[in-house]
Amino acid sequence: MRQVAVLGIGQTKIAEQWDHSLREIGGEAGLLAMNEAGLERVDALFVGNMLSPLIDDQNQLGTLLVDWMGLRQTEAVKIEAACGSGAAAFRSALMAVASGEIETALVLGIEKMSDMVGHDVTSALATAADADYELEQGISFVGINALVMRRYMHQFGWKHRDFAPFSINAHANAVHNPWARLREPITAESFEHSSMISTPINLLDASPTGDGAAAVVLVPLERLPRMGPARRIVVRGSASATDTIAVHSREDPLLLRAAQRSAQGAYQMAGVTPQDIDLFELHDAFTIMSALSLEACGFAERGQGVRLGLEHQIELGGRIPVCTRGGLKARGHPVGATGVYQIVEVVQQLRGECAQTQVDGAKLGMAQNIGGSGATVLTHILGVE
Amino acid sequence: MRQVAVLGIGQTKIAEQWDHSLREIGGEAGLLAMNEAGLERVDALFVGNMLSPLIDDQNQLGTLLVDWMGLRQTEAVKIEAACGSGAAAFRSALMAVASGEIETALVLGIEKMSDMVGHDVTSALATAADADYELEQGISFVGINALVMRRYMHQFGWKHRDFAPFSINAHANAVHNPWARLREPITAESFEHSSMISTPINLLDASPTGDGAAAVVLVPLERLPRMGPARRIVVRGSASATDTIAVHSREDPLLLRAAQRSAQGAYQMAGVTPQDIDLFELHDAFTIMSALSLEACGFAERGQGVRLGLEHQIELGGRIPVCTRGGLKARGHPVGATGVYQIVEVVQQLRGECAQTQVDGAKLGMAQNIGGSGATVLTHILGVE
Repeated sequence: MRQVAVLGIGQTKIAEQWDHSLREIGGEAGLLAMNEAGLERVDALFVGNMLSPLIDDQNQLGTLLVDWMGLRQTEAVKIEAACGSGAAAFRSALMAVASGEIETALVLGIEKMSDMVGHDVTSALATAADADYELEQGISFVGINALVMRRYMHQFGWKHRDFAPFSINAHANAVHNPWARLREPITAESFEHSSMISTPINLLDASPTGDGAAAVVLVPLERLPRMGPARRIVVRGSASATDTIAVHSREDPLLLRAAQRSAQGAYQMAGVTPQDIDLFELHDAFTIMSALSLEACGFAERGQGVRLGLEHQIELGGRIPVCTRGGLKARGHPVGATGVYQIVEVVQQLRGECAQTQVDGAKLGMAQNIGGSGATVLTHILGVE
Repeated sequence: MRQVAVLGIGQTKIAEQWDHSLREIGGEAGLLAMNEAGLERVDALFVGNMLSPLIDDQNQLGTLLVDWMGLRQTEAVKIEAACGSGAAAFRSALMAVASGEIETALVLGIEKMSDMVGHDVTSALATAADADYELEQGISFVGINALVMRRYMHQFGWKHRDFAPFSINAHANAVHNPWARLREPITAESFEHSSMISTPINLLDASPTGDGAAAVVLVPLERLPRMGPARRIVVRGSASATDTIAVHSREDPLLLRAAQRSAQGAYQMAGVTPQDIDLFELHDAFTIMSALSLEACGFAERGQGVRLGLEHQIELGGRIPVCTRGGLKARGHPVGATGVYQIVEVVQQLRGECAQTQVDGAKLGMAQNIGGSGATVLTHILGVE
């Protein structure tokens, strides 16, 4: 593949945006990224979105957005891989640019979740699970994660409070991220006493949904010099893998095999090991997913992901800072947009734009976006050229 | 781009498949294509689908299908561009293989429309239109097409019966296609007297929905010799373009600008003109779309697409045979699958596998798949190497 670089980024604040429609939120992020890139047109738009058919009665979202953004006639498509849709759109765009068919690609992750009328967001999110073999039993998506977390606590002997550092770290970092949804710090005390959602997952184990969009402009590396930002950011690794869609079909429900395989693919493509990664934007939809992700990606032994939190290794200055802009937990989780937010945040770190939460001297950043209960996993590694 | 070739195809009969689930139908077509290709695994699955979140409560369909097909861990993603989803998945796969990142890609178009419970298929299909500016007014998707057809008849002076040859030709060809949904011939008489749906569109102007899946295996051309079929089929042209999503936003509602632009892009990439195309699988969701498509792609002057039908030029042996396997009208239109059926049918023609409806000496075939009311259009040209 020819090398692909990031020419511009854009994002909206994640919130309940009652006064902005789906197209307005998407258009804002897309045009911010194009403005930063100095482009008035792109060859193609790749939209990552999961729920617009269910929440907004809108399919064909790619075409809707190029129309709205004043990019009429531009090629556009939507990519869906549940909560992994954002990174899936990024990877599709990456391959399109690498192929030579597309010179300038706009990747746009977007979700507008506040508008749910006549449906229920929990039901909509449950479409990420197996409709015939999981949902038919009446379980929700958080319910599936709760079963996994309980099993993890049982098998490896951890208490619920041991997961607190993941959420505390995410909230502490989000305080400094103007685009984050929850910018208040939390304590171990508040973590332990927040409302129970689905035992053992309580409110502060879980990421909030929200309305938001994030965007990235990708171009071949050779186009960067004449119009790029000072620090050149390139895509070093990209890989996608899947697992059984239903958790109960897995030999070992505590091993995220797709996360493991996609991380290994990304490491191999980049020619690096976990030791080389300076920061990791992981998919902390629930605290249990942070632990499992760190283990699958080679940052911790099986059952020991929680220890990285307890030993402060996931914080700024630690061995592997995660959720440096707040993660899903505090930046927010507008599901189909999340994967693009993660990549935007990695770019901000590599450019040195993160002020109070800057990882000093960051040269390689990783983002991992997960669809379903570890069913579709995409890992990307970006670096300073 | 490196050249990409077709290594295998597969399809299911389009019908109301009450005894087969979404995954069973998709798996059947996918495994047929892989068997024909002689592959037990592929690097990635690209699924084209529009309605599974709305009809089957199922997102993350790519992952569901690789899981079901015994291809666990394989990369998978779903692409959506309304009724253009099938060809959009094909184009994504094409670019992925061309980039060198993917060596063997399975493209799978699938739709299961008979299971609608608690929703209404008409409402689900309407998500292809602009939810805020078209659907809010209460119009359906067929209603939008009816307005366009009425305007065409008014502006160019055609009668409803002048559209009959499109449907008669499609039904005549479907008689010989074992995978087609409607295998009965129709007459000008039955065309004129079928039930009115949305004036002037009657039942025989409109394509039937259905349950079905079609699949194609794509590989780099250099992989063909050691495992391909005798006649080597390569992708010569591919282009995608969009128009305003709402028809009322177009300067000229009778010009399919996206069809025009994507056809021109495909001609240019293939280095051919409309005169070189031996057969054309067009998107005859409604008879009016056949006329507009033929005009946009350069086979007829503005307002004269209907004449090609009246003069028998769209039939076998005519200037530009269309819907040689029955088209959307009679083969059937399982929306997200249609674009892949079209490509499978072009491959069958180029291989010379179409018996009674074979286009003699076909060397170049074109397929055009349309999402929404001409809003997203993908054109592909395939040829014998």
